[in-house]
Amino acid sequence: MAEVVVRNKQVILKDYINGYPKESDMVVTSDATICLELPENDGGLVLTKNLYLSCDPYMRSRMSRATEASYLDSFTPGSPILGYGVSRVLDSSHPNFKKGDLIWGLINWEEYSLIKDTSSLIKIQHTDVPLSYYTGILGMPGMTAYVGFYEICSPKKGDTVFVSAASGAVGQLVGQFAKLFGCYVVGSAGSQEKVDLLKNKFGFDEAFNYKEEQDLNAALKRYFPNGIDIYFENVGGKMLHEVLRNMRLNGRIAVCGMISQYNLDQSEGTRNLFLLVTRSIRMEGFVVFQHYHKYSKFLEMIMPLIHEGKITYIEDTVEGLENAPVALIGLFTGTNVGKQVVAITHE
Amino acid sequence: MAEVVVRNKQVILKDYINGYPKESDMVVTSDATICLELPENDGGLVLTKNLYLSCDPYMRSRMSRATEASYLDSFTPGSPILGYGVSRVLDSSHPNFKKGDLIWGLINWEEYSLIKDTSSLIKIQHTDVPLSYYTGILGMPGMTAYVGFYEICSPKKGDTVFVSAASGAVGQLVGQFAKLFGCYVVGSAGSQEKVDLLKNKFGFDEAFNYKEEQDLNAALKRYFPNGIDIYFENVGGKMLHEVLRNMRLNGRIAVCGMISQYNLDQSEGTRNLFLLVTRSIRMEGFVVFQHYHKYSKFLEMIMPLIHEGKITYIEDTVEGLENAPVALIGLFTGTNVGKQVVAITHE
Repeated sequence: MAEVVVRNKQVILKDYINGYPKESDMVVTSDATICLELPENDGGLVLTKNLYLSCDPYMRSRMSRATEASYLDSFTPGSPILGYGVSRVLDSSHPNFKKGDLIWGLINWEEYSLIKDTSSLIKIQHTDVPLSYYTGILGMPGMTAYVGFYEICSPKKGDTVFVSAASGAVGQLVGQFAKLFGCYVVGSAGSQEKVDLLKNKFGFDEAFNYKEEQDLNAALKRYFPNGIDIYFENVGGKMLHEVLRNMRLNGRIAVCGMISQYNLDQSEGTRNLFLLVTRSIRMEGFVVFQHYHKYSKFLEMIMPLIHEGKITYIEDTVEGLENAPVALIGLFTGTNVGKQVVAITHE
Repeated sequence: MAEVVVRNKQVILKDYINGYPKESDMVVTSDATICLELPENDGGLVLTKNLYLSCDPYMRSRMSRATEASYLDSFTPGSPILGYGVSRVLDSSHPNFKKGDLIWGLINWEEYSLIKDTSSLIKIQHTDVPLSYYTGILGMPGMTAYVGFYEICSPKKGDTVFVSAASGAVGQLVGQFAKLFGCYVVGSAGSQEKVDLLKNKFGFDEAFNYKEEQDLNAALKRYFPNGIDIYFENVGGKMLHEVLRNMRLNGRIAVCGMISQYNLDQSEGTRNLFLLVTRSIRMEGFVVFQHYHKYSKFLEMIMPLIHEGKITYIEDTVEGLENAPVALIGLFTGTNVGKQVVAITHE
């Protein structure tokens, strides 16, 4: 039987970058080819057709030369970007996956993949929701919101909760989890459209556009006259300085990310940290990779909420792999409204 | 019967201060007088002869106009400094205290006190140790080390522990608690004499003089080639930046104080905070005042250790109330070796 070899469109990182990523830092090529049959005598491989790609802020650090502050290894210049995605299995020599399965996990930004490192792949069990949800609410960002809010924040009913980057993939879920838990929730975002979403769609008690606030401290005092019990930190920088000033005794800060810092050569120093002492504040970072063993428990919690319409989830989808670079860089200027997804193909 | 009125030497804060405290910011006067008999018909008062005073870094913030980062209210200019001390009860109309009792708690820096707010006073039960210990190992700093290490640090046997300001009242105890717990312990201090104490007297595995290190990151890597599990933070500033770079996954930072920042108009920004995320670090501040209900449990732990010689405690004592200002300001340049105590009188 003749091998089926096809062209395989890919998004390649040209070289390590500094500062804000630009569209020209990546190139979309059709130079590569891929054989759509598994090599013989080589077990443990999964051949996929890739459907949806996830654009996540953490990916920025992999686009630079690794530093001690990196989550993960750098991408390899000249090779495809790697990120979370949803795929259909075309063929498999791995016992956990078979032809026709749907999976989510780390995949190259390309149309088809021959996956050797299958450690991140999870078989999708529930297909009565949009498959793209596995890049977000049912994937890494969903688990991040779940672990971050329920475990790291140690919430109590009635707590006052502030979420930054609140309309993003993680923030929108944290805010809704907090409301369901009986907290007072305020979110910040970077446009009026996002603020409206937070208040009208996600049910935040209040929301504000941080770009329109001359004085973030005053803004926070307006919405939290008695202070903040829980801060879900996605942005870092100036917002963190001002939030610290508004934290209450025994407050908790879950440090999920600091998107304002990712494109700086040197991170801004955080002032006001002494307030951790005088107000007995716990500030705790976390990476979701350490918590994936809780995924099935998470699904048990989240699936009924989705089916009963008790939780809302907004995606911002671009069509086509050729538009993936623009979608990714848009995260850092806030052009996306909701979770940024790339649809490679609708099967 | 004629009232017994005596002169009462006091240490007065002249005015709110900025920057490093100077001897001239305080004045020792004998202008005041005190009646050594309790007023009649006025219950709940305790009249004391004051024996030992404690010099503690946290007192610095009370010498300035209160800010949002303050632990406690400011001192009142023109009035005596207030701090922890040990006193003998000369007379009492409070049911918990009687003539002859020894107490520790918050007392004015003066020879005799008529104490109306008795809420901080604790009756001393064990007198088979130096009474001055109740300003330190058996008082607020001891409780601070106890709560900070055993609760906030969540230690595990074999953890690598770094303590800054390690020869101070709190640091010397944290290091010894950590050694008793089965940890590897390194301390930093500001002189060779202190470094020798840490290694030879307190049993730290290693110690270094931070003033002689050109590169704190390199120094930390020398003593922690595989990173730090627990950092007991007493100093803040540059040390914290560099420690963050050397923390291990799931590390814990107990933020007890930041003495390097107390005399600055604006605190230094802390860089490298994003490492909290990528290494899942918990950074937790605490104030001991919230934990005093554990004091009797603490005594049960610490008294046998003292009696069996399993714990060592070093004090740096100056004689006489007139030397209290110099003793207090010396904390901020590190002139004290061990816990700084002022002995007003040896009964």
